[in-house]
Amino acid sequence: MKRTGSKVVYEGKLSKVSLESFRFPDGGSSEREIVHHPGAVAVVAFDDECVRLVRQPREAVGEDALLELPAGKLDVAGESPLECAQRELVEEVGIRAGSWEKLKFFYVSPGWADEELHLFAATDLEEVGPEPSEGERIEIVRWPLARLEQAIDECQDAKSLVGLLWLRLRLA
Amino acid sequence: MKRTGSKVVYEGKLSKVSLESFRFPDGGSSEREIVHHPGAVAVVAFDDECVRLVRQPREAVGEDALLELPAGKLDVAGESPLECAQRELVEEVGIRAGSWEKLKFFYVSPGWADEELHLFAATDLEEVGPEPSEGERIEIVRWPLARLEQAIDECQDAKSLVGLLWLRLRLA
Repeated sequence: MKRTGSKVVYEGKLSKVSLESFRFPDGGSSEREIVHHPGAVAVVAFDDECVRLVRQPREAVGEDALLELPAGKLDVAGESPLECAQRELVEEVGIRAGSWEKLKFFYVSPGWADEELHLFAATDLEEVGPEPSEGERIEIVRWPLARLEQAIDECQDAKSLVGLLWLRLRLA
Repeated sequence: MKRTGSKVVYEGKLSKVSLESFRFPDGGSSEREIVHHPGAVAVVAFDDECVRLVRQPREAVGEDALLELPAGKLDVAGESPLECAQRELVEEVGIRAGSWEKLKFFYVSPGWADEELHLFAATDLEEVGPEPSEGERIEIVRWPLARLEQAIDECQDAKSLVGLLWLRLRLA
C-alpha cells in the first residue's frame, strides 16, 4: 500500500482531517477521509489493593462522569510516551510509580483515525499529592481489586477496557 | 453538564467536526472540538476451535494488514446495532450465527470523538460462503483458540483487543 496523494481539508486546534489516496499491490486504489490526532497514553496503576482510576466529564459523548484509566494526550514536543505517562500519573492522580511496564501499543479506531495509544502498567506506587490540572474536573478513584469486575462493567472507554481486562487476566 | 453552543466547522463524507461549548454545575465552562462518527459494531464469532478474524489494510494508520474482529460502521438508516452486526458477519466473513450476546457498549476515544462501539459475541456458526464487499481487501482468518494469546499479541486495534481479552477470560 502506497500513499499517492494527500490534501488537508480541515485543521483545528486538536484534530486535522485530510483526504488521501492510496494504491495497492493488486493495482487497485482507494480514497480515505482520515482524522489525525496527536496520540495518547494510558496507565494501569495498581498495588495489592487498588487500581487508580478517574471519573471525569466527557463532553464529546455527553457523559457527566466516565470511569477511565489515567490518561493524556501526547502533546508535549520531544516527550516520549513513557515520559508522558509518568507526567500524567502525577498530574491526574498524584502518584509516582517506581516500576513501569509497556503493555501494549494500539490504534483506537484505525478505520478512520490515526490516534495511537500507548498503554503502560505502573507499580511500586507512591502518593505525591494531587496536582489537579487547571480546568479539569477529575475525581480520583481508588478502586479495590476485589471489585475489579464491577469496574469493567461500569467502564465505557476502549483504552480503559483494554487495560482493565489485561489486569483481570494478570490477577487471575 | 449542559451544552450551550455548537457550530459545525467541517462536514465530510464520513466525519464531521464541531466546536461546542458546555456549562458545568460548578459554574465553570469548557470549549471542545468534537469529531462525530456514525458509530460501529464488532463481533467475537467463535466455535469450539476458532475465532473468526480478518486481516485488512488500514490506510488511516499506514498498516498493510491489521488483525481485527469483523466489524462495520452503523451507516444504514434504521438498522439496529444487532442487525448491523449480523449483516457484517455475513458480508465480511461469510458466517451466519444462531446465537448472539451483547457484550459491551463503549466509546472508542471519548476525549475528542463521539464514536460508539457495540460489541457482540456470536456462536452457533454456520458457513454461508464469503460475500466479499466490493473494493475491500479482506483476508478471512480462522484463528485457533489454542493460540488466542498470539492473536492478542498481534492485534493492534482497540475494539478487537477488548473482544479478544473478553474471550480469553471467558475461556479461562
